[in-house]
Amino acid sequence: MSKLVECVPNFSEGCRPEVIAAITEEVKKVAGVSLLNVNSDASHNRTVVTFIGEPQAAKLAAFNACAKAAELIDMEQHQGEHPRVGATDVIPFIPVSDITMEECVQLANELGQEIAEKLNIPVYLYEAAAKTPARVKLPDVRKGEYEGLKKAISSPERHPDYGPAQMHPTAGATVVGARQFLIAYNINLSTSDVNIAKKIANSIREVKGGYKYCRAMGVMIEDRNMAQVTINMVDYTGTPLHRVFETVKSEADRYGVSVIGSEIVGMVPLQALVDTAEFYLRLEGFERKQVLEENLR
Amino acid sequence: MSKLVECVPNFSEGCRPEVIAAITEEVKKVAGVSLLNVNSDASHNRTVVTFIGEPQAAKLAAFNACAKAAELIDMEQHQGEHPRVGATDVIPFIPVSDITMEECVQLANELGQEIAEKLNIPVYLYEAAAKTPARVKLPDVRKGEYEGLKKAISSPERHPDYGPAQMHPTAGATVVGARQFLIAYNINLSTSDVNIAKKIANSIREVKGGYKYCRAMGVMIEDRNMAQVTINMVDYTGTPLHRVFETVKSEADRYGVSVIGSEIVGMVPLQALVDTAEFYLRLEGFERKQVLEENLR
Repeated sequence: MSKLVECVPNFSEGCRPEVIAAITEEVKKVAGVSLLNVNSDASHNRTVVTFIGEPQAAKLAAFNACAKAAELIDMEQHQGEHPRVGATDVIPFIPVSDITMEECVQLANELGQEIAEKLNIPVYLYEAAAKTPARVKLPDVRKGEYEGLKKAISSPERHPDYGPAQMHPTAGATVVGARQFLIAYNINLSTSDVNIAKKIANSIREVKGGYKYCRAMGVMIEDRNMAQVTINMVDYTGTPLHRVFETVKSEADRYGVSVIGSEIVGMVPLQALVDTAEFYLRLEGFERKQVLEENLR
Repeated sequence: MSKLVECVPNFSEGCRPEVIAAITEEVKKVAGVSLLNVNSDASHNRTVVTFIGEPQAAKLAAFNACAKAAELIDMEQHQGEHPRVGATDVIPFIPVSDITMEECVQLANELGQEIAEKLNIPVYLYEAAAKTPARVKLPDVRKGEYEGLKKAISSPERHPDYGPAQMHPTAGATVVGARQFLIAYNINLSTSDVNIAKKIANSIREVKGGYKYCRAMGVMIEDRNMAQVTINMVDYTGTPLHRVFETVKSEADRYGVSVIGSEIVGMVPLQALVDTAEFYLRLEGFERKQVLEENLR
């Protein structure tokens, strides 16, 4: 079993396929990295690339992709609906297995420094890598976007964490950081009353006194005539899936409603499933390396 | 994600380290195979080797190890407490992921044929690969052991499935087959009364009307002063972990006893944990490829 991180860089190009291909090619050609997904949006004029790999390999892939984006994308020409400050807009590292958040913060610092020194692009650190509370949230770092930051960057409170206090003439700035894996999780209810789903969502949402790492809404799934609690689990190591599931089940019961199923949308780290099995089977002393497939890596 | 099998060949040598090393070296040097465990027992004079890999790579590793054992082990000289018929005594293939039992049976046939033709060793097929009911169980195939089978092999009902109807002069015969993964699973009770554990074990054992793929006993764990139901799950795809756990919980409750924990001893296939999480979280439409780490293979 080797250390594994996920990296999800966002690039300010969602229209020109040859540019997107050139950038993703930089990821593909690094040994020890697996490209999982490339998602381009034309109206956002933005591409989200997802890959996993050994930490140093992931850093190299992120750097090479960022260098290629700086070469091919001109922010002076860029238009799109999504907020952005640079050709490579944001690069988060996410711990997947056998690695701590602190190690991902360290990785973000190494990459940020390298981008600043070798590409002359100012770099801001965000989320777990942020050096001040004002830079934890991405919208705060990105305030004014590319056009606004061109001027604002010269004022000391907007100076970058690495690199020159002026925008790269075409590539702008880049935000690098570390955050937890986000699990998109929906719980389906045996009711068509969306208000029940909204009340249950409020019972688990951090802002309403619920779980710290839980964002939730009640929504209606029209084609199934079914109310749903739709959840972003922003740190499954702090607020585990089973706890949210059991709380929703218990709150639903108060309205005479049942949980008829749940859905994990997209990817989930193996550890979240191991944690679930550990809880329900009351496992004692279980270790990841007991999972047969873990011995292949 | 690639097809993956486990292979657990047993060799009739548990004392001479240089012979054991030479055999396991044959496994190690095949690309696409990971050696998980080597367990030698001197009184059994036997070594159990566990490895996983892509099917054709696993077959090659098993063949090469078998050829090396035929070269270095002389059954005429072999003594040990454990029943055996050959230098390579038995080679089971076990489906791990993305592969069916039928494919493992096919693999056993290919390997059996190759051992017979290239090494001139008679091969018997057992368990899921057996061609007649009389050869499903290993003890039936091994009846008379090496010494007895030397004569018996000439009678038509003991003719091998592949190869000559006479023992190899030094390597004897080899039994090849396919079976499910066995999970060793214990459930701990909040009582020191072993009779309660025995009664609960009877409720889940196949022979007492319990689950088809469940072997169970009630035992006392002296150092914790605790009764335990100790279980062999011989096919977790037919009788899943969660069903056995929930039945034990329910039966224990009838005696006013609680389940205080459970233990998975040794390895468990990822799929058994996925199945557990699917059951308890009532997951809809979940696929293995949603497990992030699965995308590395």
